[in-house]
Amino acid sequence: MEDMQHQVMGYDRTATMFAPDGHILQVEYAEKTIRLGSASIGLVCKDCVVIVSDKRKNNKLVVEGSGNKIHEIDEHIMVSFAGINSDARVLIEKARVLAQQHRITYDSKTNTESIVKDIADVKQQFTQYAGARPFGVALMIAGFDSGPKLYTTEVSGGYLQYKADAIGERDDKLRDLLQDKYKEGMTCEQGIKLALDIFKDVLGEGFDIGRFDVGVIDSKKKIKMLSSGDLKEVGG
Amino acid sequence: MEDMQHQVMGYDRTATMFAPDGHILQVEYAEKTIRLGSASIGLVCKDCVVIVSDKRKNNKLVVEGSGNKIHEIDEHIMVSFAGINSDARVLIEKARVLAQQHRITYDSKTNTESIVKDIADVKQQFTQYAGARPFGVALMIAGFDSGPKLYTTEVSGGYLQYKADAIGERDDKLRDLLQDKYKEGMTCEQGIKLALDIFKDVLGEGFDIGRFDVGVIDSKKKIKMLSSGDLKEVGG
Amino acid sequence: MEDMQHQVMGYDRTATMFAPDGHILQVEYAEKTIRLGSASIGLVCKDCVVIVSDKRKNNKLVVEGSGNKIHEIDEHIMVSFAGINSDARVLIEKARVLAQQHRITYDSKTNTESIVKDIADVKQQFTQYAGARPFGVALMIAGFDSGPKLYTTEVSGGYLQYKADAIGERDDKLRDLLQDKYKEGMTCEQGIKLALDIFKDVLGEGFDIGRFDVGVIDSKKKIKMLSSGDLKEVGG
Amino acid sequence: MEDMQHQVMGYDRTATMFAPDGHILQVEYAEKTIRLGSASIGLVCKDCVVIVSDKRKNNKLVVEGSGNKIHEIDEHIMVSFAGINSDARVLIEKARVLAQQHRITYDSKTNTESIVKDIADVKQQFTQYAGARPFGVALMIAGFDSGPKLYTTEVSGGYLQYKADAIGERDDKLRDLLQDKYKEGMTCEQGIKLALDIFKDVLGEGFDIGRFDVGVIDSKKKIKMLSSGDLKEVGG
Amino acid sequence: MEDMQHQVMGYDRTATMFAPDGHILQVEYAEKTIRLGSASIGLVCKDCVVIVSDKRKNNKLVVEGSGNKIHEIDEHIMVSFAGINSDARVLIEKARVLAQQHRITYDSKTNTESIVKDIADVKQQFTQYAGARPFGVALMIAGFDSGPKLYTTEVSGGYLQYKADAIGERDDKLRDLLQDKYKEGMTCEQGIKLALDIFKDVLGEGFDIGRFDVGVIDSKKKIKMLSSGDLKEVGG
Amino acid sequence: MEDMQHQVMGYDRTATMFAPDGHILQVEYAEKTIRLGSASIGLVCKDCVVIVSDKRKNNKLVVEGSGNKIHEIDEHIMVSFAGINSDARVLIEKARVLAQQHRITYDSKTNTESIVKDIADVKQQFTQYAGARPFGVALMIAGFDSGPKLYTTEVSGGYLQYKADAIGERDDKLRDLLQDKYKEGMTCEQGIKLALDIFKDVLGEGFDIGRFDVGVIDSKKKIKMLSSGDLKEVGG
Amino acid sequence: MEDMQHQVMGYDRTATMFAPDGHILQVEYAEKTIRLGSASIGLVCKDCVVIVSDKRKNNKLVVEGSGNKIHEIDEHIMVSFAGINSDARVLIEKARVLAQQHRITYDSKTNTESIVKDIADVKQQFTQYAGARPFGVALMIAGFDSGPKLYTTEVSGGYLQYKADAIGERDDKLRDLLQDKYKEGMTCEQGIKLALDIFKDVLGEGFDIGRFDVGVIDSKKKIKMLSSGDLKEVGG
Repeated sequence: MEDMQHQVMGYDRTATMFAPDGHILQVEYAEKTIRLGSASIGLVCKDCVVIVSDKRKNNKLVVEGSGNKIHEIDEHIMVSFAGINSDARVLIEKARVLAQQHRITYDSKTNTESIVKDIADVKQQFTQYAGARPFGVALMIAGFDSGPKLYTTEVSGGYLQYKADAIGERDDKLRDLLQDKYKEGMTCEQGIKLALDIFKDVLGEGFDIGRFDVGVIDSKKKIKMLSSGDLKEVGG
Repeated sequence: MEDMQHQVMGYDRTATMFAPDGHILQVEYAEKTIRLGSASIGLVCKDCVVIVSDKRKNNKLVVEGSGNKIHEIDEHIMVSFAGINSDARVLIEKARVLAQQHRITYDSKTNTESIVKDIADVKQQFTQYAGARPFGVALMIAGFDSGPKLYTTEVSGGYLQYKADAIGERDDKLRDLLQDKYKEGMTCEQGIKLALDIFKDVLGEGFDIGRFDVGVIDSKKKIKMLSSGDLKEVGG
Repeated sequence: MEDMQHQVMGYDRTATMFAPDGHILQVEYAEKTIRLGSASIGLVCKDCVVIVSDKRKNNKLVVEGSGNKIHEIDEHIMVSFAGINSDARVLIEKARVLAQQHRITYDSKTNTESIVKDIADVKQQFTQYAGARPFGVALMIAGFDSGPKLYTTEVSGGYLQYKADAIGERDDKLRDLLQDKYKEGMTCEQGIKLALDIFKDVLGEGFDIGRFDVGVIDSKKKIKMLSSGDLKEVGG
Repeated sequence: MEDMQHQVMGYDRTATMFAPDGHILQVEYAEKTIRLGSASIGLVCKDCVVIVSDKRKNNKLVVEGSGNKIHEIDEHIMVSFAGINSDARVLIEKARVLAQQHRITYDSKTNTESIVKDIADVKQQFTQYAGARPFGVALMIAGFDSGPKLYTTEVSGGYLQYKADAIGERDDKLRDLLQDKYKEGMTCEQGIKLALDIFKDVLGEGFDIGRFDVGVIDSKKKIKMLSSGDLKEVGG
Repeated sequence: MEDMQHQVMGYDRTATMFAPDGHILQVEYAEKTIRLGSASIGLVCKDCVVIVSDKRKNNKLVVEGSGNKIHEIDEHIMVSFAGINSDARVLIEKARVLAQQHRITYDSKTNTESIVKDIADVKQQFTQYAGARPFGVALMIAGFDSGPKLYTTEVSGGYLQYKADAIGERDDKLRDLLQDKYKEGMTCEQGIKLALDIFKDVLGEGFDIGRFDVGVIDSKKKIKMLSSGDLKEVGG
Repeated sequence: MEDMQHQVMGYDRTATMFAPDGHILQVEYAEKTIRLGSASIGLVCKDCVVIVSDKRKNNKLVVEGSGNKIHEIDEHIMVSFAGINSDARVLIEKARVLAQQHRITYDSKTNTESIVKDIADVKQQFTQYAGARPFGVALMIAGFDSGPKLYTTEVSGGYLQYKADAIGERDDKLRDLLQDKYKEGMTCEQGIKLALDIFKDVLGEGFDIGRFDVGVIDSKKKIKMLSSGDLKEVGG
Repeated sequence: MEDMQHQVMGYDRTATMFAPDGHILQVEYAEKTIRLGSASIGLVCKDCVVIVSDKRKNNKLVVEGSGNKIHEIDEHIMVSFAGINSDARVLIEKARVLAQQHRITYDSKTNTESIVKDIADVKQQFTQYAGARPFGVALMIAGFDSGPKLYTTEVSGGYLQYKADAIGERDDKLRDLLQDKYKEGMTCEQGIKLALDIFKDVLGEGFDIGRFDVGVIDSKKKIKMLSSGDLKEVGG
């Protein structure tokens, strides 16, 4: 009821307007865009960080590898996303440039959170200034610097560091399951199996080991993308 | 019903606004523009990539060659489009400049996906910033670098690499037929024949071998435009 | 009905907005401006290109020669137009500057299509960016470079090369008659006579040999404007 | 009826919008401003050009000479106007600067049409770009270069060269009378008398020789302003 | 009735819009602001120019001299105003700077009309460009250069030179009385007495010699402000 | 009634719009903001100027001295305000910078009115240009240069010099009492007592000597802030 | 009722508009955002300043330390906030840069209020200029320079120095309890216990010692963050 009222009154037409109850509705709508996107689960394990992303592949004419959901920011930082693909690409490209600049300036690998913060700052600006819309995308960024790290950024530019988190379609259900089943100190294999089990639970008959991208970063600080074969072994 | 509501509420007036369900309606309307345009089918074959474009020629006073649907970006990259002609021309011109800059800077041919990504980034910006409308055009870009490649860019700036895809009028039906009939490893000739067969199926009596442009790029990495004579031989 | 709805909803207030069916209505309205303007017919003949323009002269106090519909872009390129006079003047002036720049830079005459493309690009921009309206004018550009050439540019910035085309008032009827009666390989004289006959057909009693401007460019690559006397000889 | 509809729909709120029938209504409204202004008649005579301007003087406390309707652009070019006084002043000032720049650059007097075109280009821009309103003024520019010349510029930036023309209040009636009575080859005196006779006809009892400014330029290429005494002699 | 209609339709919301009858309503509204301000009368006398300004002083706690209505632009040019005080101050400050620049550049006093024209040009711009409102003030500028001069500038940027004029509250009535009673060749004293008599007539019981500022410039080209004592002598 | 009408018509949405009766309603609304603020009384005494400001302190957890209503611009100029605190702070900061620049440039103390004028000019601009709102604050500026001076600036950018004035809550009543009771030539002590008496009268039971800031500047040209003890002595 | 009216009239759509009663409604709405955020209490004690912040932690998968509510601006200045997290981060980042610039420029620690004022000025600008929304966040800034200091900044850019204050959810109730129970001269431990007691009172069963961040700065001028263990000792 109140939502309807706010719509009629036009409080939801721009991210530069607060509704009378203090909400910024364009930001909340953009969060719905994210929930229209396919989901990703990230987990910090004993000595690694893992992202398992649903790429919802239902067009067999798309080339294998195109439409992947997990991308490299730097060799020790990977990212998945939910929401508008091209918005994600723009932010990921910015993140890559920042990582490269750090390498060139300091001759060392950048810190994961530093990348997360810079991208989140860009997202914040698009919710405060007129002349553009917010980025319709959530990023899940995982890296290994002093240890395995996992972050999720929101439309608003807010972000937190997680032991485990989910973004995209039915994220609430995925998070509930993570709250129940996540344990600290799992091996990478256990982590991946847990994520796939949770997806199996949520997707039901739609589950298919072939529709997932899985990325792992361990203490070698190099992203490793798992093949379908690897996944089947783990227990898909 | 919900569409109507969104229209009355004005969520569809600018690409810088999310509707309450997370959609960007101006982008979806621009996609309809694309479906008002004549169609193109692209296919990756064993050692080549092929685009077959309907130019819907119904004005015999237009000079042969003018209004062609397939254009060169670089000698090893071609492009077809569906939607607003002049929007396409502007993007293709940008693509050509990018390809030339690459040649001059690196003294080598540019990679097809690199061109695709740059053009897609331009398209994304026109869906996020105020002061302009999105480009009302889909581009189908085919090139031969490390092998035959086919990409399609959307209004939103999203793009994917395909084995085979279609854009423009009745693209859904064309894609369904491609899903059924496309086989990897076809010869160029088989690929062209398949595309023409699919058009024959969809256009019915309107089918006419003279209304198609056909471009092929094989491992010689030079675009070859086929004449009507060539097409008739293939099986138009 | 649907038009009315789109008007009520305001989809037709700016060229930077797509209507739900993918049309850009401001561009379509500007095309109506063009049909409020007096007509021109252009034809490519055996060894020349011809434009016959109605200047609808009904004010005898206007000085002979002022209000002419055919203008020079360069000595081998002429242009007629339909729509808003001052919009046309601005574009023609741009075209002249481009032609002069080419001469100065390359010490040679510019190519007709190169001028057409540059002007069409300007027109496209005025349909995509906010802060201005589209140019309410169609240009018919005829030149002789490698041979006789005829182009027509639309409001949207689209253009095509024609053997024969018409713009302005009742352009549909003029084009139908051209489709019927145009033959390749006519002499200049036959071309002019055909255009005048078509005007006679469409204007009926309003037809008057004195209301037409006729320009011809043959292989000498110089615009020749015909006098009324010349026209009467041809068969006005 | 249709006008009313266009007003309700808001097609008439800015010069950067076409109405569905292709008209730019703000330009048409600005033309009404011109018809609220007092009238001027211009005529080309055998060896001179004449402007007769009504200054509608009805405040005897205005200083003689202030509120004159005829102004100098250069010593051989004069201008009258109808519409918003301050808009006219701004354009006339621009014209003067252009004329002076020409003198300084080329050490010769500028051509009348060249001034007309430049001012008309400024007027066109104010009908195409947002952020300003069109100039609410028509200029009647008369000069003597290769011979006597008379031009009128419209709100839209269109202009034509005339043998005789009228602008301002009841311009339609004034033009009808000019069409009837203007003859080529009149002497200056005959021209001025004709203009005054036409004003007498239109203004009826309101006619008063004292309310007119009269400017003449003959082959000496110097503006001559006529005194009331001169006018009474001519036949006021 | 028509006014109401124009208000409902919104033709009166910005100075960059013409109403269907050609009026610019924001300019007309700003003129009403001027009539909310206290009045000034200016007169050219035999060898001087006089301004008599009502400062409507009704707050005895305002310091004598603050809130004066007559200000110096240069030692030989004074100004009074009606309308928004701070708008007036901004324009007067501009006028002073212009006068000083003239002195510095040419080592001579500026001409009164030259100041008037420059200020009027500023006012015109604020009625043509978006992003600001018109100046809500009329200026009455009096100077002595080749002789005594009096000008009044309107909101639109129009101005005229007067023998005598009035601005502000009940200006119509003041002007009517001036038309009746003003005579050329009066002495300064007669001029001041006439202005005060007219104010007495219009203000009735509200008249009080103490509420007027009176400035005079004679052939000595220095502003002289009259004291209350001086005024009582003259005949207040 | 008329107010309601103006609201419905939207004449009160921006300071860049005149209402049909010539008022600028946003400026008038901002003046209401000022009356929501706590009041200040300023008085010029025999050899000093005094400001007595109510700081309406009702939160005992605010640190003594924070939330003071009287601030220093330069050592001989003080300011109080009514309205939006942060708007006041911004303007006061500008004033301080101007005063410092004067000291550095001319090696002397700035004149009080010169500061007042510059701040008033800033306020005027925010009522004429789009893209911002007016400053919602009135400043009362008191200084001692050639003698004791007191000024009040309005939202519009208008200002006057006063012998005594009041701003903020119930300013009308405060001014009425000042008109009645203010006498020229009072001692500082008498002035402060008068201001406190007037506040006592208006605030009734709410009166509390602890809620006032009192600043005095005498011929030593240094601001002196009075303590509560000082005030009780004076007669709070 | 009046609120509803203001909403219908649209006075609450931008921070650059005053409502007819002088309020800026967007600023008031943003203040509601702040009350949607979790609360913080700050207190000045005998020789220290304390902030106790509720981080409302209800997601056990968030990494300990991420989502902390108390951040360092400089080693002697800390900040907590209520409202939009990313808005807070942007302002805190600005504050850090200002503190660093001070250190570099003057080789000394910055003053707490100087940071507070600069941040408050930024907030003020976002309530006066169009093209952005106000910052939806209140900052509580505590530092130790000449002594312990506590400040709170509002959306409007207003700020005050407090002995004790609260921001965020149910701030009114928290402030009431502080008014009752706060005593000057408490030890740090007493201060922390008081804040926790007040939270216990307000949160009831929701109270959990684990959901609070506590920061202390004493005369050593270094922020000390307390562990849960420390807190339990104090009396959580």
